[in-house]
Amino acid sequence: MKIWQKNIDVDSFVESFTVGKDREMDMHLASADVLGSLAHTRMLNSIGLMTNEDLAAVQQELKNIYKEIQAGQFQIEDSVEDVHSQVEMMLTQRIGDAGKKIHSGRSRNDQVLVDLKLYFRSEIHSIFNNTEVLFNELIKLSEKYKNVLMPGYTHLQIAMPSSFGLWFGAYAESLVDDLHMLKAAWSVCNKNPLGSAAGYGSSFPLNRTMTTELLGFEDLNYNVVYAQMGRGKTERILAQAMSSIAATLAKFAMDVTLFINQNFGFISFPAHLTTGSSIMPHKKNPDVFELIRSRCNKIQALPTEIAMMTTNLPVGYHRDLQLLKENLFPAFQSLNECLEIATFMLENIEIKDSILDDPKYDYLFSVEVVNNEVLQGIPFREAYKNIGLAIEEGTFQPSKEVNHTHEGSIGNLCNDHIRRMFTEVKADFGFEKVEKALQELIK
Amino acid sequence: MKIWQKNIDVDSFVESFTVGKDREMDMHLASADVLGSLAHTRMLNSIGLMTNEDLAAVQQELKNIYKEIQAGQFQIEDSVEDVHSQVEMMLTQRIGDAGKKIHSGRSRNDQVLVDLKLYFRSEIHSIFNNTEVLFNELIKLSEKYKNVLMPGYTHLQIAMPSSFGLWFGAYAESLVDDLHMLKAAWSVCNKNPLGSAAGYGSSFPLNRTMTTELLGFEDLNYNVVYAQMGRGKTERILAQAMSSIAATLAKFAMDVTLFINQNFGFISFPAHLTTGSSIMPHKKNPDVFELIRSRCNKIQALPTEIAMMTTNLPVGYHRDLQLLKENLFPAFQSLNECLEIATFMLENIEIKDSILDDPKYDYLFSVEVVNNEVLQGIPFREAYKNIGLAIEEGTFQPSKEVNHTHEGSIGNLCNDHIRRMFTEVKADFGFEKVEKALQELIK
Amino acid sequence: MKIWQKNIDVDSFVESFTVGKDREMDMHLASADVLGSLAHTRMLNSIGLMTNEDLAAVQQELKNIYKEIQAGQFQIEDSVEDVHSQVEMMLTQRIGDAGKKIHSGRSRNDQVLVDLKLYFRSEIHSIFNNTEVLFNELIKLSEKYKNVLMPGYTHLQIAMPSSFGLWFGAYAESLVDDLHMLKAAWSVCNKNPLGSAAGYGSSFPLNRTMTTELLGFEDLNYNVVYAQMGRGKTERILAQAMSSIAATLAKFAMDVTLFINQNFGFISFPAHLTTGSSIMPHKKNPDVFELIRSRCNKIQALPTEIAMMTTNLPVGYHRDLQLLKENLFPAFQSLNECLEIATFMLENIEIKDSILDDPKYDYLFSVEVVNNEVLQGIPFREAYKNIGLAIEEGTFQPSKEVNHTHEGSIGNLCNDHIRRMFTEVKADFGFEKVEKALQELIK
Amino acid sequence: MKIWQKNIDVDSFVESFTVGKDREMDMHLASADVLGSLAHTRMLNSIGLMTNEDLAAVQQELKNIYKEIQAGQFQIEDSVEDVHSQVEMMLTQRIGDAGKKIHSGRSRNDQVLVDLKLYFRSEIHSIFNNTEVLFNELIKLSEKYKNVLMPGYTHLQIAMPSSFGLWFGAYAESLVDDLHMLKAAWSVCNKNPLGSAAGYGSSFPLNRTMTTELLGFEDLNYNVVYAQMGRGKTERILAQAMSSIAATLAKFAMDVTLFINQNFGFISFPAHLTTGSSIMPHKKNPDVFELIRSRCNKIQALPTEIAMMTTNLPVGYHRDLQLLKENLFPAFQSLNECLEIATFMLENIEIKDSILDDPKYDYLFSVEVVNNEVLQGIPFREAYKNIGLAIEEGTFQPSKEVNHTHEGSIGNLCNDHIRRMFTEVKADFGFEKVEKALQELIK
Repeated sequence: MKIWQKNIDVDSFVESFTVGKDREMDMHLASADVLGSLAHTRMLNSIGLMTNEDLAAVQQELKNIYKEIQAGQFQIEDSVEDVHSQVEMMLTQRIGDAGKKIHSGRSRNDQVLVDLKLYFRSEIHSIFNNTEVLFNELIKLSEKYKNVLMPGYTHLQIAMPSSFGLWFGAYAESLVDDLHMLKAAWSVCNKNPLGSAAGYGSSFPLNRTMTTELLGFEDLNYNVVYAQMGRGKTERILAQAMSSIAATLAKFAMDVTLFINQNFGFISFPAHLTTGSSIMPHKKNPDVFELIRSRCNKIQALPTEIAMMTTNLPVGYHRDLQLLKENLFPAFQSLNECLEIATFMLENIEIKDSILDDPKYDYLFSVEVVNNEVLQGIPFREAYKNIGLAIEEGTFQPSKEVNHTHEGSIGNLCNDHIRRMFTEVKADFGFEKVEKALQELIK
Repeated sequence: MKIWQKNIDVDSFVESFTVGKDREMDMHLASADVLGSLAHTRMLNSIGLMTNEDLAAVQQELKNIYKEIQAGQFQIEDSVEDVHSQVEMMLTQRIGDAGKKIHSGRSRNDQVLVDLKLYFRSEIHSIFNNTEVLFNELIKLSEKYKNVLMPGYTHLQIAMPSSFGLWFGAYAESLVDDLHMLKAAWSVCNKNPLGSAAGYGSSFPLNRTMTTELLGFEDLNYNVVYAQMGRGKTERILAQAMSSIAATLAKFAMDVTLFINQNFGFISFPAHLTTGSSIMPHKKNPDVFELIRSRCNKIQALPTEIAMMTTNLPVGYHRDLQLLKENLFPAFQSLNECLEIATFMLENIEIKDSILDDPKYDYLFSVEVVNNEVLQGIPFREAYKNIGLAIEEGTFQPSKEVNHTHEGSIGNLCNDHIRRMFTEVKADFGFEKVEKALQELIK
Repeated sequence: MKIWQKNIDVDSFVESFTVGKDREMDMHLASADVLGSLAHTRMLNSIGLMTNEDLAAVQQELKNIYKEIQAGQFQIEDSVEDVHSQVEMMLTQRIGDAGKKIHSGRSRNDQVLVDLKLYFRSEIHSIFNNTEVLFNELIKLSEKYKNVLMPGYTHLQIAMPSSFGLWFGAYAESLVDDLHMLKAAWSVCNKNPLGSAAGYGSSFPLNRTMTTELLGFEDLNYNVVYAQMGRGKTERILAQAMSSIAATLAKFAMDVTLFINQNFGFISFPAHLTTGSSIMPHKKNPDVFELIRSRCNKIQALPTEIAMMTTNLPVGYHRDLQLLKENLFPAFQSLNECLEIATFMLENIEIKDSILDDPKYDYLFSVEVVNNEVLQGIPFREAYKNIGLAIEEGTFQPSKEVNHTHEGSIGNLCNDHIRRMFTEVKADFGFEKVEKALQELIK
Repeated sequence: MKIWQKNIDVDSFVESFTVGKDREMDMHLASADVLGSLAHTRMLNSIGLMTNEDLAAVQQELKNIYKEIQAGQFQIEDSVEDVHSQVEMMLTQRIGDAGKKIHSGRSRNDQVLVDLKLYFRSEIHSIFNNTEVLFNELIKLSEKYKNVLMPGYTHLQIAMPSSFGLWFGAYAESLVDDLHMLKAAWSVCNKNPLGSAAGYGSSFPLNRTMTTELLGFEDLNYNVVYAQMGRGKTERILAQAMSSIAATLAKFAMDVTLFINQNFGFISFPAHLTTGSSIMPHKKNPDVFELIRSRCNKIQALPTEIAMMTTNLPVGYHRDLQLLKENLFPAFQSLNECLEIATFMLENIEIKDSILDDPKYDYLFSVEVVNNEVLQGIPFREAYKNIGLAIEEGTFQPSKEVNHTHEGSIGNLCNDHIRRMFTEVKADFGFEKVEKALQELIK
């Protein structure tokens, strides 16, 4: 029987509409739900609301359920409303009435809130890890191809000499800035809403600081009204952080589809990683990158969706919030897959050498030549005029050597600094502290 | 004559289309442009590309122009394309050919990039300051009205006792989380793109670390391709951070329009701060809060606009980026005004006492009463049944006292902790370092 | 074996990434795919590219498959890439090589295009039908409660007398305007892209006019490049049309959650259609309407998602388009369910009588009283002053009768005109012509 | 003195915040405001609420003001709140107390509503006209270059032969579909809200049918609550229609930036219509098209902005709606300019001949060759194998003739049909009826 049921039967039409995809979505929250209950019950015991005996039984069985979840053996039954009821029911079936007591001193609202925060933390950690692997691959490629020149475009017009070292390195550095956003999302997620009950607190003498420490949270969502208000907001901020990484990936994918196009022809992939046809042997459809681009652009629309679903809702819980799960939860998997497959593809990328030998790229060097004359003492306007004249007369013969030395330029990529910045932002997260607390909780 | 003009006249139709609102928008960048040039020219001198004499003249006159800008005496002439040309022209008119040399070793692209970063830093600082004032007002009100109860709603249905202390405090704490986003935007903005030239670096032996220090940046945008790629991305991240504060304000404004509505009647404002009519004396139209809500919802749409304008653009500069200024720049002023006027209105808010005396709020206390029985040792299901029965029989007579003691609840708001979190995130920005560097630069 | 496979094995990691949810999504296209093939093969026969014998076998078996789809007996096997391959495979298994010929003179691209258009037409028709049922219910309620007054709000402040007749009728009329958008989407969908091949046409002497007639399309997507370009665009326009209906529903749902709130208390629903608790017997959580609001706001974000995924893609097919199915297809079901359940709920709505007897609504009538004096010849400014004075002195005693007679006012709702407008826009669709053509095709 | 002012001074801080940009925005509504008053006062006279004498004076002077507006001689004074007050004030200054009577029987709300509808109709007409001119230019170019082949791309990979005839024609046909959306917006705008007062009707015996006819509206917004509810909704629908045209333009602009890129090199523009530099003479920066793309992508974000600002607002007027003007009104001018300048640029476009002579495009023809063998009786799989083999052996020598004959293909563009569709959708608007009514009103 559902908790909210009164003595009146709820029409099944209405029920199916209201339950929606909750069972499917809630599977993602199973581990988090058990972790939350492990902490909550220890706190209940500490304030005298659960006996030592009950606590021991509950802890033991919750840990068993946790293992079952990890092993993929957990399911939400069709007759059960959501993950919270499923866990409570399993517990009660196995250890009797003590199982029912895990709900004391909390409401469904703060139980969901803490589940979401724990789940989001875990997903942020996964995204971080996959971002790190991609980052390392990009830096590796940047170093490997630092001497291979390519044209640089402005307005999509051939403009200046660039290099594959610069191109790969640019996306590595882009990910560092994205991580500032992910860190902000982490900070918002890493605060404990448990104990806020239905958003207005409780007359039980809860020790919220204790659950905060047990769950490895950095701090509390103190104000109980704010703890509830964080729902929707947390999701939007997290989606914004994901959209930042997604934007970097989408842009890179756009470059790939352009540079693998035969009119550019700068890069390639082995045949088994593209699609083609035996009568169009030149064709190397970059489906993987088109789908990365598409998935990432979809993720870029996610914050708008969340904002549209939450804006102008007054303070307090609304059922609307339930539906935020539906596009957000799958987006974690989608973004992680994009990061993984982008790394995989990059491990196989093939770079064309000697692109700039083609005479159509000669003018790339005109600014170089002007600057070199200036460095030799010729006033800029004069040097500029000289080269313009040489070009007009067809006598312009640029040396195709590039001698850039300043920070971040072709000859001085500063990938070590970019690595350092990555390491600094990584340290800000403090993943270890969280991992340690959770290990403690389930051991 | 425009820099990009060739010996062919550009059709004035095309020119007016391409210049667009740039002159108007660029006025916001004037101070930043001068600061950038102050740093750039000192660096040029240090690497031997500007004589001491020229440097002295340029520095002196740039500081004069800076003062004129601060004094509101600066304008971009109709015949001048943008702020950069205007400053260069003024300089050249006043100190001769030395003025032209400020453009050495940079391109228009990285000049714009650094101007934007400096301008954004300054706007973030303003937004922070206005947020702090609002935060303080909210905490003050939370403390002042901590004993005034109000109904708490879930599903917009009367649910549990709440308080004005909780309500005001919730929005204060919401602002703290918003500041994590603003801090991320700050971190992205607080890196130096100067020296990236047109996005592919330069053959000049620039010292980018030097300009980084002079301008008080935390670090460099090292990779020159990334430095250019940061345009559009920086704007989007900043808009996302602003949208977070805006979402908090919009939600608060929604509450206000609801709570000032006569069916609720929880709050009021002095007549001169609302609009009404002498034949509808009950009417207190909360125009200010409706406009805060509307402006803030508009700001919430800004990241979408920026994403839509930048997504799927391949690497390298595109003219598209110019138009990002048009809705973003005015949004700074709009958000700041919203923060200021919200504070102003809150200084004048009137709170209704004894709201819960109305018998329609009696059921608010049913959960309280159940919980109190539980605390006295009665099993939950039994206590629940008792109260349900009492209600059904009409004998339910709740004590309307609320005794919540845990962290963040009605009786224990933890505003000091919320203040502490505010102070911690404030310290992360490091505004002083930036201010000090800029003071040094213009002194 | 997949059609695009070369003699090289495609890595299964890549395959799973690229196939994505296509099998699940493609189930929606099964009927449409068969309809397209029924028309295409008749055309192939007419231009001599399919024998009469092959045609007969193919038509017979496609009709069988169509019936299986209708009966829910159709599935896409795990080893099969998409719905098109599944149908072709089944056909070939059952009738031999003739089955393979259905692909002649088409590419996968235009096959998908025509499937989508046929599917979208069918979904538009469903949405229309559900909108019509809701429209009729709203008009019925408007007539039923035309004499029950309620307060009208501006700025969410009590402003003027309104009525349930007006309230229900307003949403009915809103749906009429929404249907103009749906009709535009229908017009865009109701054009035939079949025969555009991969977006560049074909050297086969196809008769595209013939398939246009067979499939009941109003016209052709003539230009083959445009036929392909319509993908993504069609989806966006359709999503915009859906978002218009969704916006009407979301707004209505917002009203419901407000008016069922105990501070307003204008409407109610039977207990089994809301959720509550036995210790908070006053609580009638309007979950259904909160979820309607949330679903509809999600749909309002759909056009943004599609625009974000398609903008700045140059001419020609891109794999990105595949992912447009994922949120759009489920949105059809979601919107239809919202329309159905909103109608169901409205059939059970309970309206509170005599709301305006509460003295807090007295001032509602002040404008009425002024206007009545004006109609009796007193100048407006004087009448206004009189009433203002009476209110100030506490002698204002309004008659609570409302005598509005003009078109669309409380006393003259013009629901017959609103019905007429509905009928007119319905006629513009021309559903019968389409139905007739499809019946002909499968008979 | 402002109409809504009570005897209390409104703080100037609040006033400036609430007035916002209204004076600037309202200038766009001046003509519409006078037209509305011309119709309203004739109706007032017809129901006995305005004397013949007053009517004559009012009509005469409103027509004078109308001429002043057309001549650019109208301004909203700083001390005046909005356009409506300005017109009323001018009228009263010139003809005395009769001027004040134009406000009888209306509220500010329905006055704004009708102004907006009239203004939007006029802007839709302008957009239509500019779209028509662009459409004609595209069709002209399609015909002119129908025999010039270019590569067709799928996945941005060289795929099939295409032509400039197809490319230009595709965008022409795209505009036809966009006009279905514009027509839907027109239908929504072309209904009369005047007489709905503050959204709850009036006790005056207004004749709304009369003003509907005088203003050339197709029908009424009957239900007065709906008439008010149309605000925000009308704007969103209109923005969606504009975004459809904008999406077509943005995509075309993307193509242009790609095809003018030197790696493609398919098109060009005269030097004075692009930007470049004398030392990079190859550079033809397509700034105009980059700005078209950017402006149009901005317009594509407009519906989101409007939805975000209006969603979840309950029934009745809210001050939020005022701000919808700020990005919408300038978007009319922006879109019109994009349409105009795109046409202008197209008049100057230069097309490269003989693109396909480059051997890199040989494989374009492989599908052609297969199909031709099939047409000569060789089974598809065999023909496919033959060509595949020839390509593998390097003996593939395609004839580069394309012989496509079906509807909409290279050899049969069907531009006459596309023109016919354009004409049909144009006829649906019924611009003449509207123009005639307005001419009558001001004559």
